[in-house]
Amino acid sequence: MSGLVGKDILSAFDFERQDLFRLFILAERLKEEINDFGILNYAVGKLMVTAFFEPSTRTKVSFQFAMKRLGGDVIDFIEEVSSLQKGETEEDTMRILDGYDPDVIVVRHSKPFFPHKVKDMVKAPIINGGDGTNEHPTQALLDVYTIWKELGRVDGVVIGMMGDLKYGRTIPSLSYMLTRFNDVTIYFISPKELQVREEVIKKIEGKVTYYMVEKPEDVMEKLDVLYVTRLQKERFSDPQEYERLKGSYKIERAMLQKFKRLPIIMHPLPRVWELSTDVDDLPQAKYFNQAKNGVYIRAALLKEVLGV
Amino acid sequence: MSGLVGKDILSAFDFERQDLFRLFILAERLKEEINDFGILNYAVGKLMVTAFFEPSTRTKVSFQFAMKRLGGDVIDFIEEVSSLQKGETEEDTMRILDGYDPDVIVVRHSKPFFPHKVKDMVKAPIINGGDGTNEHPTQALLDVYTIWKELGRVDGVVIGMMGDLKYGRTIPSLSYMLTRFNDVTIYFISPKELQVREEVIKKIEGKVTYYMVEKPEDVMEKLDVLYVTRLQKERFSDPQEYERLKGSYKIERAMLQKFKRLPIIMHPLPRVWELSTDVDDLPQAKYFNQAKNGVYIRAALLKEVLGV
Amino acid sequence: MSGLVGKDILSAFDFERQDLFRLFILAERLKEEINDFGILNYAVGKLMVTAFFEPSTRTKVSFQFAMKRLGGDVIDFIEEVSSLQKGETEEDTMRILDGYDPDVIVVRHSKPFFPHKVKDMVKAPIINGGDGTNEHPTQALLDVYTIWKELGRVDGVVIGMMGDLKYGRTIPSLSYMLTRFNDVTIYFISPKELQVREEVIKKIEGKVTYYMVEKPEDVMEKLDVLYVTRLQKERFSDPQEYERLKGSYKIERAMLQKFKRLPIIMHPLPRVWELSTDVDDLPQAKYFNQAKNGVYIRAALLKEVLGV
Repeated sequence: MSGLVGKDILSAFDFERQDLFRLFILAERLKEEINDFGILNYAVGKLMVTAFFEPSTRTKVSFQFAMKRLGGDVIDFIEEVSSLQKGETEEDTMRILDGYDPDVIVVRHSKPFFPHKVKDMVKAPIINGGDGTNEHPTQALLDVYTIWKELGRVDGVVIGMMGDLKYGRTIPSLSYMLTRFNDVTIYFISPKELQVREEVIKKIEGKVTYYMVEKPEDVMEKLDVLYVTRLQKERFSDPQEYERLKGSYKIERAMLQKFKRLPIIMHPLPRVWELSTDVDDLPQAKYFNQAKNGVYIRAALLKEVLGV
Repeated sequence: MSGLVGKDILSAFDFERQDLFRLFILAERLKEEINDFGILNYAVGKLMVTAFFEPSTRTKVSFQFAMKRLGGDVIDFIEEVSSLQKGETEEDTMRILDGYDPDVIVVRHSKPFFPHKVKDMVKAPIINGGDGTNEHPTQALLDVYTIWKELGRVDGVVIGMMGDLKYGRTIPSLSYMLTRFNDVTIYFISPKELQVREEVIKKIEGKVTYYMVEKPEDVMEKLDVLYVTRLQKERFSDPQEYERLKGSYKIERAMLQKFKRLPIIMHPLPRVWELSTDVDDLPQAKYFNQAKNGVYIRAALLKEVLGV
Repeated sequence: MSGLVGKDILSAFDFERQDLFRLFILAERLKEEINDFGILNYAVGKLMVTAFFEPSTRTKVSFQFAMKRLGGDVIDFIEEVSSLQKGETEEDTMRILDGYDPDVIVVRHSKPFFPHKVKDMVKAPIINGGDGTNEHPTQALLDVYTIWKELGRVDGVVIGMMGDLKYGRTIPSLSYMLTRFNDVTIYFISPKELQVREEVIKKIEGKVTYYMVEKPEDVMEKLDVLYVTRLQKERFSDPQEYERLKGSYKIERAMLQKFKRLPIIMHPLPRVWELSTDVDDLPQAKYFNQAKNGVYIRAALLKEVLGV
């Protein structure tokens, strides 16, 4: 049986190298089967709860597609129409939901380590769908799966991660997951005050080669992958600093055409101004494929965690 | 196979006369089958996404019933708990949802022509569930289906459409769909400043006979159908004008009993003050039947669009 | 066939003694079957609508689990994204939803007797999921089922109900349901101004033995069951009275350890301050089991009402 059956998935570190390759291959197989049959029958009789204490389009809907395509069903707990308004603690909510005997719970919360805090209170396997600024391991899964599909390998890849690296939760998870591969180089591209957190660096130290740089132009031609993330005005302590730097962090067609060699361009989406729609038609633009890959890799993960 | 398989349904004009009769007959058949079996198996393995960027009770829930009764399943994208709050463009949202490979997407939006704008970005067939003041083609479908069921014909029908004809989106779609029938007469009954838009008139000119009148009393006894819609205070530039006219646009039992011959009374619902609950028990009141018909005609439409 | 097939369930009084025992035994059987098979096939082809005009976590999600575990499916009407925002009356909403031919409707509303008001407008059986301060009969069902499971009997039980007895809707329903058993004693434990309403007392008079007391300490050792409910500051006309009494109504470990004999401790949840988390590990703490029991007893109820 699978190595992930019944396991909580809280961090990108919960995946070993062999888990990742196995999931990628399973995702490919599930994609073909879903194309052929629409709905499969692996998860017939299984119920997933989505408990999102914070808004989300893609993660929740992507998990719902994945579960339904596997043949399972979904119950969506929506915070807005819940007794949280009466002051119930979210730990109680999780225990109650778990008491209803779901087969798996996907949880998102604005508090870092919320899933870690409740995991021992609940019997069902918990999948972390994003916990504040800490991690978003299934996003990393689809990111790395996309790199593997697009480049044919992850070992030896050179990736630039750009934007607000300090507060974005996809950056830590993606960095952690890349430590499972050999000879990876990461360029963290960000204004100094929004550089990746020290705690993240500690966990990747010695496992990947990394550099901190300030502008994407400086490294563009070295990259296999440019991973763009949002850079929000409110993260800057000094609004003038934001206005000064903004231009450098906008990826647009004209800017890209200055380079001889372009990386594939990824983005966890949603995007705001930092990635222009005029990039969408370039062959390097992979972000909509990336989002799409989320359904199949999450289906693979659910199939393993459910042990079906 | 059906003439509508894989087609986008954006406008009432997307239905030819023969499409409409075929859908009406299919809806009748599906209703019988649903009564007998509860859930059918036509759409087993198919997923519909409802992407409603604007509130709705009936349209969304009616589509959900239709899809589930056909044996398919539904994933509901809810704007309120989405990344739109982070500033994602709605075009991106549609592309991402489409990337998850739904079999059909029903979209509602407050912006006119939103579905038209995104249709070429998405692979799945799109059904317009209402686009601002522009159109609501599946509402027209259930309206005309109701007329056909109640009167046994649509050709030659005389219909009064009443209320806020300028901003209501059911009025254009219903008017357009009626052009597919022979010898239809429409009385547009409305205060002058809320009369039907010129662009709508242009599209029906020469295909139906129409008149613009100001009060329902003037034409009541000529009508086969009185189609009542809401008339909201905020639509009037002059509040005194609203107060002056309000009485004439309220359909109530006492008012109706003055006439020798009554049309059937329809309403797209929800109603506010313009249609009194004391009308509900009259044999002419068909609006709850009309709402109910929505499930079966939408099931017929989905069956054809899905090609199942 | 079952005695409850097609019946509206509006009040705890809608259950006779023999209905309750039959449902308890059916719930036990369904729990075993669900453990063995995940999803059963009793309700295949059946659709339940949840129409909650007021927030809820547990009741709605618990009903959704129950219906899906029986093999049926659910359509969730969410007020927030509905045409109620346009001013539609909730009676119209219920008639429209009913017109879509669901097999059962679970309704919650902040207005007492809302389900009673609409029941004759709708064909589908209605289950009251809580109507303002009036009743919450399926909560009573899971409460009494829990007592039966934990104590092996309901006849002869001595129960203390504590908290805001005046406004809490679980209290009336639980009291009413207990009248179906023999020799039950109820201690209503509450500040005088929040004691159980006269209308409730009238309905249980002569059918159970009851006493009104002010503090839990006075009766703790007599109790088989302590049923704790929330006591909200805003219910007190005098804030100083709240501060004075608050301490007496907080159940915590240290307070409980003063007694030689402890009752089982129940709570309809959500809790706020009145039930400390340090009680959770005591063997008497049954409130999470109680919540969990809701799925199975509601599945039993749905199976009977649907006649499947």
